[in-house]
Amino acid sequence: MSRRSQGKRSWDVRASALARNTHNLIRSIVENLQVEPNPEKRFIALSVGDPTTFGNLNPPEQVIQAVRESVEWHTSRGYGSMVGHQEARQAVAEYSVHQGPVTADDVVLCSGCSHALELAITVLADPGQNILVPRPGFMIYKTVAEGLGIEIKYYDLLPNEQWKVDIEDLESQVDDDTAAIVVINPSNPCGSVYNTEHLMEILDVATRNCVPIIADEIYEHFVFSGHKFTAMSSLSKDVPILTCGGLTKRFLVPGWRMGWLIIHDRRNILGKEIRKGISNLASKILGPSTLIQRALPAILQSTPQSFFDDVVLFIENQAKLAFEEIRRVPGLRPIMPQGAMYMMIQIKMSLFPDFKNELEFVERMVSEQSVFCLPGECFCYPNYMRIVLTVPEDILREACQRIALFCQDHIVTRDKIKEIEEEVTLSNEACRMINM
Amino acid sequence: MSRRSQGKRSWDVRASALARNTHNLIRSIVENLQVEPNPEKRFIALSVGDPTTFGNLNPPEQVIQAVRESVEWHTSRGYGSMVGHQEARQAVAEYSVHQGPVTADDVVLCSGCSHALELAITVLADPGQNILVPRPGFMIYKTVAEGLGIEIKYYDLLPNEQWKVDIEDLESQVDDDTAAIVVINPSNPCGSVYNTEHLMEILDVATRNCVPIIADEIYEHFVFSGHKFTAMSSLSKDVPILTCGGLTKRFLVPGWRMGWLIIHDRRNILGKEIRKGISNLASKILGPSTLIQRALPAILQSTPQSFFDDVVLFIENQAKLAFEEIRRVPGLRPIMPQGAMYMMIQIKMSLFPDFKNELEFVERMVSEQSVFCLPGECFCYPNYMRIVLTVPEDILREACQRIALFCQDHIVTRDKIKEIEEEVTLSNEACRMINM
Repeated sequence: MSRRSQGKRSWDVRASALARNTHNLIRSIVENLQVEPNPEKRFIALSVGDPTTFGNLNPPEQVIQAVRESVEWHTSRGYGSMVGHQEARQAVAEYSVHQGPVTADDVVLCSGCSHALELAITVLADPGQNILVPRPGFMIYKTVAEGLGIEIKYYDLLPNEQWKVDIEDLESQVDDDTAAIVVINPSNPCGSVYNTEHLMEILDVATRNCVPIIADEIYEHFVFSGHKFTAMSSLSKDVPILTCGGLTKRFLVPGWRMGWLIIHDRRNILGKEIRKGISNLASKILGPSTLIQRALPAILQSTPQSFFDDVVLFIENQAKLAFEEIRRVPGLRPIMPQGAMYMMIQIKMSLFPDFKNELEFVERMVSEQSVFCLPGECFCYPNYMRIVLTVPEDILREACQRIALFCQDHIVTRDKIKEIEEEVTLSNEACRMINM
Repeated sequence: MSRRSQGKRSWDVRASALARNTHNLIRSIVENLQVEPNPEKRFIALSVGDPTTFGNLNPPEQVIQAVRESVEWHTSRGYGSMVGHQEARQAVAEYSVHQGPVTADDVVLCSGCSHALELAITVLADPGQNILVPRPGFMIYKTVAEGLGIEIKYYDLLPNEQWKVDIEDLESQVDDDTAAIVVINPSNPCGSVYNTEHLMEILDVATRNCVPIIADEIYEHFVFSGHKFTAMSSLSKDVPILTCGGLTKRFLVPGWRMGWLIIHDRRNILGKEIRKGISNLASKILGPSTLIQRALPAILQSTPQSFFDDVVLFIENQAKLAFEEIRRVPGLRPIMPQGAMYMMIQIKMSLFPDFKNELEFVERMVSEQSVFCLPGECFCYPNYMRIVLTVPEDILREACQRIALFCQDHIVTRDKIKEIEEEVTLSNEACRMINM
């Protein structure tokens, strides 16, 4: 492992493999895109999964008031316990009764849901093992895992069945080295919400193969009318589930980095070892600010249901608006979400011969229409793009109109199709002649 | 690497090696101590390095006001850049001019100084390599490194020379696998403050051996009268230095988890690779709350010097008080600190035959006198204990008096010495007879 050879002293400082192998897929892709907006049109970013960007969505007064009060307390300035203040963990346990029996001892407070996911992955998987993640899916798992030498394997979601899990594919991906299955519900980027029956199908795979589940439920309760959110852990009879959640999206304060990990272990399969392991990892003291921890009980207890209802209704209406606008655009196929705050849109690339792939498509849409959507590649799912639904209504409407304009400008015409067909014929002809 | 054998499906979920090998030394030791206070005496914890515990030390009004304002801004609720908001990094750069030339691009905001130290260690060292840390020293480095398979090697500090680094020992510890030298200045747990000359000696070792330095300067400016804090990075002509700091101690808000890493690289030795590596690691999004990030410029710019002066003067007076009290206690030898907020006290264990080691000593001091000091073992330095100087004056005074009482009760008496000598003689006699 030595980097410097004996006796030879010269400066040669290399980054560790961990640092070199840690990548944020979205960032890597976005950094490599040419995203120079058209200076004549106001730039609209439909790319960032941050509901606070435009200032139209704000946390309720109760949340702000809880922190106003916490700021004044001297007890909100000192270190907390490594797994978080007892009262805050108790409040999370009470807030999470829909997940099944939870006590404060089952809760570890984290620096955002990303930290909870990191804890869950690192406690369960060793280098050389793998975790299964949905495709398309949010890729923070990849960022965390690959740096540590943990392999990411994908199982497919079915775009024509409301992004349900391809159960057969899921089961076929499990192998002897599978340390965990990650389930995102409601889904980022798809906005799908799984019903009880489907969650049971997933649980069955986990039971048959004795693989624990990491349930990314940061969008819990974020479901549109006619749908119901069910916590994976509330259905499990045996499968141990590490549920990751937080204030982030639901309370509209992603920057506050207040997340949590909840250990569900109905049959005591994880035993002391996993709990001890999580507590060991928490002893690196990377947990959330005690300023927010102290405010957490009031935040969770006093926020009125009407606040959540209003936010979800707004997003549902935005989803309907975008769906109606986009489904009329030739060459695009939006898939109506059932929850969360995103919509996936299929780009029929064969109808846009100007572009080699959807990366070029979204790139050019920025330079011509100043609208930026995240390419499907960011979720390991080419030929799609993801839009964020939390932007103000007028901006979303304008963005959809510009997307439509862009597609009209670039979609293949009858004339173009003829041209292409002729080219293909000529080229086939040429091939035949060469092969003769 | 497979944990389950083919075809054999049963539940067997094990914690990863990373989780099993991550330990917080202080916690492990304290958890295994019997620390049941004497119910008749109020418990005094001189163990916790948290200046806010007793409520006698509070951040200045300007700091609280900065957060009060930040709470009201909608821009303090969204995600920041992965390395932190530009304005906040710029403010840290300006605040850190004493470290040498620093721009916002050299600053990465972290979730407390622990996170900064973790970033520094993980970007520089691979499994199988080692980092050198001072003994006695704060052991968060060990927590972070050993989980990842990075070895910790110790270099000695000299208790009779104000805890200066044993330069010869430091140089002898460097080997081909040494990825970094950690220097803590001012020191936790020793309270030593190194002058320019001594810092240059350390830098010389780093230069000769081409090893970068991780400078843990979380106690920067925390120095008593007659001493001067010098940033390691301000002296380096070639050695790349990753300096770790934060609001934690100086602004009396450790729970807020606002730290930073500053990259000093005068000769561009780290190049793009280390900067890219740090930015990769930051993309796991474990950074600090944007609520505090947004308040950071005001916090750093508006806190008056008089606040810092008052806090340091208080701690210096506490150090003098404790030193005067403890140095009169037979069997103990306090070492007067020059800064930070701790004092190390040597326990002449041979004079306390009731106890096998200093762990038993501090344990019994809790059960008899309800005073808890951290055993030296927590800093890999037996036969010492560390006390925290930030507790209120009357409590510190009472604690010192109880420590004195405890020592009086247990120090070996002339009679006891005679008794022990007789026992030894008898036992030697017995040995001789057996051996005859």
